[in-house]
Amino acid sequence: MLIVGERLNVSRKGMEALVRGRDEAAIRAEAIRQVQHGADMLDVNAGALVGEEPEALRWLVATVQSAVDVPVCIDSPNPAAIASALEVVRGKPLVNSISGEEARFRGLIGLVKERGCGVVALCVDDEGVPASAEESVAKGSRLVERLLGSGVPPGDIFVDPVVRPAGTDSGAGVSALEAVKDIKRRHPGIRAICGLSNFSFGLPHRSLLNRTFLVAMMSAGLDAAILDPVDDRLHAVIKAAEVVLGRDRNCARYVKAYRDGKLGSA
Amino acid sequence: MLIVGERLNVSRKGMEALVRGRDEAAIRAEAIRQVQHGADMLDVNAGALVGEEPEALRWLVATVQSAVDVPVCIDSPNPAAIASALEVVRGKPLVNSISGEEARFRGLIGLVKERGCGVVALCVDDEGVPASAEESVAKGSRLVERLLGSGVPPGDIFVDPVVRPAGTDSGAGVSALEAVKDIKRRHPGIRAICGLSNFSFGLPHRSLLNRTFLVAMMSAGLDAAILDPVDDRLHAVIKAAEVVLGRDRNCARYVKAYRDGKLGSA
Repeated sequence: MLIVGERLNVSRKGMEALVRGRDEAAIRAEAIRQVQHGADMLDVNAGALVGEEPEALRWLVATVQSAVDVPVCIDSPNPAAIASALEVVRGKPLVNSISGEEARFRGLIGLVKERGCGVVALCVDDEGVPASAEESVAKGSRLVERLLGSGVPPGDIFVDPVVRPAGTDSGAGVSALEAVKDIKRRHPGIRAICGLSNFSFGLPHRSLLNRTFLVAMMSAGLDAAILDPVDDRLHAVIKAAEVVLGRDRNCARYVKAYRDGKLGSA
Repeated sequence: MLIVGERLNVSRKGMEALVRGRDEAAIRAEAIRQVQHGADMLDVNAGALVGEEPEALRWLVATVQSAVDVPVCIDSPNPAAIASALEVVRGKPLVNSISGEEARFRGLIGLVKERGCGVVALCVDDEGVPASAEESVAKGSRLVERLLGSGVPPGDIFVDPVVRPAGTDSGAGVSALEAVKDIKRRHPGIRAICGLSNFSFGLPHRSLLNRTFLVAMMSAGLDAAILDPVDDRLHAVIKAAEVVLGRDRNCARYVKAYRDGKLGSA
């Protein structure tokens, strides 16, 4: 499981002030902390800084890269902000995200191809967000075919089913699970990614719901998740799920995490 | 999810003495406690009392039924003990278990049909325990076909894939998950059941592994699990998994469990 740390996002409490104030030390510390907690990649998002996003996102990427070696996941709906960040990026980033919305697709496909980035393919188009598994699959499949047709290698495509809140839609979980299974079956070699926290929006004990949803999504074939790596219980459940799904030979990583005190009170 | 409480089993610490001493008050209290913690059915097992099992199991069933109204799951490899317990049973019990072992099948099929019991169908035959998902599916499918051919209704058959310990076999989880999915696909209407605790045998933080395995098994289509209902974290994760799997309309049971303080510190 590829763990994408979600904490460098200006919509999170306290982050906007740090980015506006260009607080390098704090951003670097947050980057290092997430990597120490097992993040394989760091999401960076400055979307709330209207008008200043391209410059802020570019600064965020440069600052994070001055602190850690993991790749960045450049998170914006705005092709201009992504282009700005790509100018300073090192290594192979993940662009988060392209979609079937015409302007967004056209604005990003050239950059993605030119730079050989990975890309999150959001199951959304100009008709809106999917309301069912069938709509996720239909919107996602059209987008994946278009990306493949444009020459993006399957392994660079991370399809995101768009997770809806269970609190307003009891079918939200099944819809995301079925979409991941179905899209991966139709398009061998592509990968699946999602954010967790939207699922539990508006419900109590969100962390419990998020980690339970994550186990089900991993069982359905999820390859990567955007989450808070500092949440110890989430970390513990990922280690346990890797045992359940046969991805931890001789349970070596699970037992090591236990010995390192990283499974919490379990 | 049908929750079968596992605590009335003489192989559990302290239980053998209670059953040998015919301690009615203690057994009744344990039965009541499990039902108060959400058990839909209670497993009773006196298998460790060699030579005395039929009489002990019969006493256990009668004692449990004097305390609670939920059905019992009569747990024994010994057809004579099951027959003895069935003489005093009320309601529709679950016989745990029949298998493809010839003597066990012949010893139980008549009782199961005559009494109209539910039956756990263990994916084991005279050639032994399955070593892979394929073997579970092959052994399980043969047994299910034989039960159906004998006139047992599909909804009364609870197939058990036989969970192996992940500590000695990294493929144990995938094998159980695939067996449940495959056997249920082949035989519409039948149900799947398993015990949890064997999965984590020999590994640290067993409760974490057990509940993570349960979420994955529920995602694969598990209908019932034999588990410790008094384990609050297991209870919380079942409630969360029912939200994830779209089985909790408007998240009503989840929110109620939260309000009742039953989701723990989550």
